[in-house]
Amino acid sequence: MRFQAVAAGILILSGLCGAQPSPDCKPAPTNIPGAQYPCVYPDGRATFRFVAPKAASVQVRVGAAYDMTKGEDGAWMVTTPPLVPGFHYYSVIVDGAVVNDPGSHTFYGTSKDSSGIEIPEPGVDYYLSKNVPHGQVRMHWYYSKITGAWRRCFVYTPPDYDTNLKARYPVLYLQHGSGEDETGWTIQGKANFILDNRIAEKEAVPMIIVMENGYASRPGEKPPASPPSAAGRGARPPVGPGTSAFEEVLVKEVIPMIDASYRTIPDREHRAMAGLSMGGNQACRVTLANLNIFSHMGMFSGTCLGLGTQPFDPKTAFGGVFADAASFNKRVRLVWIGLGTAEPEPFPASIKAFRSSLDQGGIKYVYFESPGTAHEWLTWRRSLYDFAQRLFR
Amino acid sequence: MRFQAVAAGILILSGLCGAQPSPDCKPAPTNIPGAQYPCVYPDGRATFRFVAPKAASVQVRVGAAYDMTKGEDGAWMVTTPPLVPGFHYYSVIVDGAVVNDPGSHTFYGTSKDSSGIEIPEPGVDYYLSKNVPHGQVRMHWYYSKITGAWRRCFVYTPPDYDTNLKARYPVLYLQHGSGEDETGWTIQGKANFILDNRIAEKEAVPMIIVMENGYASRPGEKPPASPPSAAGRGARPPVGPGTSAFEEVLVKEVIPMIDASYRTIPDREHRAMAGLSMGGNQACRVTLANLNIFSHMGMFSGTCLGLGTQPFDPKTAFGGVFADAASFNKRVRLVWIGLGTAEPEPFPASIKAFRSSLDQGGIKYVYFESPGTAHEWLTWRRSLYDFAQRLFR
Repeated sequence: MRFQAVAAGILILSGLCGAQPSPDCKPAPTNIPGAQYPCVYPDGRATFRFVAPKAASVQVRVGAAYDMTKGEDGAWMVTTPPLVPGFHYYSVIVDGAVVNDPGSHTFYGTSKDSSGIEIPEPGVDYYLSKNVPHGQVRMHWYYSKITGAWRRCFVYTPPDYDTNLKARYPVLYLQHGSGEDETGWTIQGKANFILDNRIAEKEAVPMIIVMENGYASRPGEKPPASPPSAAGRGARPPVGPGTSAFEEVLVKEVIPMIDASYRTIPDREHRAMAGLSMGGNQACRVTLANLNIFSHMGMFSGTCLGLGTQPFDPKTAFGGVFADAASFNKRVRLVWIGLGTAEPEPFPASIKAFRSSLDQGGIKYVYFESPGTAHEWLTWRRSLYDFAQRLFR
Repeated sequence: MRFQAVAAGILILSGLCGAQPSPDCKPAPTNIPGAQYPCVYPDGRATFRFVAPKAASVQVRVGAAYDMTKGEDGAWMVTTPPLVPGFHYYSVIVDGAVVNDPGSHTFYGTSKDSSGIEIPEPGVDYYLSKNVPHGQVRMHWYYSKITGAWRRCFVYTPPDYDTNLKARYPVLYLQHGSGEDETGWTIQGKANFILDNRIAEKEAVPMIIVMENGYASRPGEKPPASPPSAAGRGARPPVGPGTSAFEEVLVKEVIPMIDASYRTIPDREHRAMAGLSMGGNQACRVTLANLNIFSHMGMFSGTCLGLGTQPFDPKTAFGGVFADAASFNKRVRLVWIGLGTAEPEPFPASIKAFRSSLDQGGIKYVYFESPGTAHEWLTWRRSLYDFAQRLFR
């Protein structure tokens, strides 16, 4: 066993440290400590390196797939064209096997712990850890009777939560997308840093953010597996296994637990729900079905239509909640819809159909477009940045 | 891109869901949601499955390396002999490339995000999430002037921390091993569940646990990369790059920050430090050099000797701190040393040498052996279980 460990060490060392990139190619912020690759050039090109001396073919797939070329040291390399800024899941394909890049941290998305690469956005720092007061993100375990299991959610508490002990706070329930989990909004989305910065600038009111796992199953139910499907993330049907149980868990268990455990303002005026993609589907359905509980709703690249692209009848759909537009517009303080301009179908068509129905029904909403970004985390960081400043005003 | 996504989805689906294991082989608790493999039999045998239709050879390395056999569906499989209970890092070797198993969650260890498999320990539940009150684990960001960077630590707060607002708590500083980080004691070590359970049984006093990243570098210093070395985890030299800066960060920055941010009892009687392997080296050095700050010390499979196996002179070593045994034994309320009986050299010889020197010098300590476990997390879960109940009594 010791000799095997030696061999492994050498393999890994050569993979991480065997070559130095060009000085203007900086290790990606998403790399593990000490890993020089992947590295990113100022123009967004990225160089990937993967050690597989005996492989016949190696590709890296980051959006598109790029063939890698084998060097004399047994390491395969490729430099991509400039990549869009933001966070991208990626993988390496070694002789047909889809694997991680050992140089990258992993991020739960695409239904597994996936490699990811952050392409820095020049001149933009709203999602970075800046020299401002920081909130915390708490791992909070609780027992769910509906699922018969312990569950974990992440809870952001704003910077003054532990010092301003008489203050109470509004709450945003914020959901991840298909194939992701409760870690996504903190690790990939940087929700805590976005709020730290906006709160420091007094552009958002201090708030608690609850980030739950959007999958749940009742005892005996097959757990939702959420495998990647043909349409990629966000492609889950709008209502499916695990989704309805999740919605019941959120409304009947999580909200009362949060109101009992944190210094919230426990009324509908101070409660919002938002989500991305599948989480946007959930936020739309949950808020419309529970307007006695929520007053603000955010839909980031996903609505009640799921992947549907047909408009609905605002007079009858969703239990007739939109039938009286004047009443709805008064009661619901914010309806917010966002989309990246580079998102693939069916997202643009679906958002367009949903908006057209709201327009037809006279429902007010804010519409936001993220220039040049796809169905990816930079769209949703920008969405949260805009959405958060409009909450609880 | 859409068609590539389709192809990727099919590959991944076939990897995760293409076969069903034997009914008595249960998916490992460390798997991603929905993954059937790896699975574990009641006797500890584990079956691994990895899809690589075009590969010429595939092995899984979990302690030893096991050759996998290709099936007609392009998936390689192997069933191991019974594995020791507990948590094991593992990897798959595909045509010489060392990669993760996409069926497993990843765990930061061996200096990367590594696959891991939990072999349940029959009849043992002290580290599981049980129906007792749960504490939280907080991600706490703080700015370090010494390193010139924002750092993150994990802070366990006991179950009554947010309700018993007049209570103040003792603090245990608890460090991971080489090639790991601040996430290890929560994710692999289950420190929070161990404490939840011990506190519920009234076998440990409620305490705060601070889990820091044991690596730090001063501005301009090369960041410590901690690659796996020939001797595996724990093999870092006892003092090296990143280690001395870490010790300064802990004493000068982290402890004052924790005492200012949490309801601690900020005196030496209520402050302990422990760690595993490299973290045990750090705990030993930091506590002995700062007995005005700490009164309890725990060394799990690592001491001030690092990997050294030569005894020291208790009259002169470590600044003469052991020279007056009676005074030391009175002042230091707990010296705790633990080791797994299946650990490889140099750990047994190093612990033996350290103990023999303490014996020679008349220094009292508790010595604990974990039966049958190696230089792995089950040794350290058991260590924490025993150590925690002896703290702050």
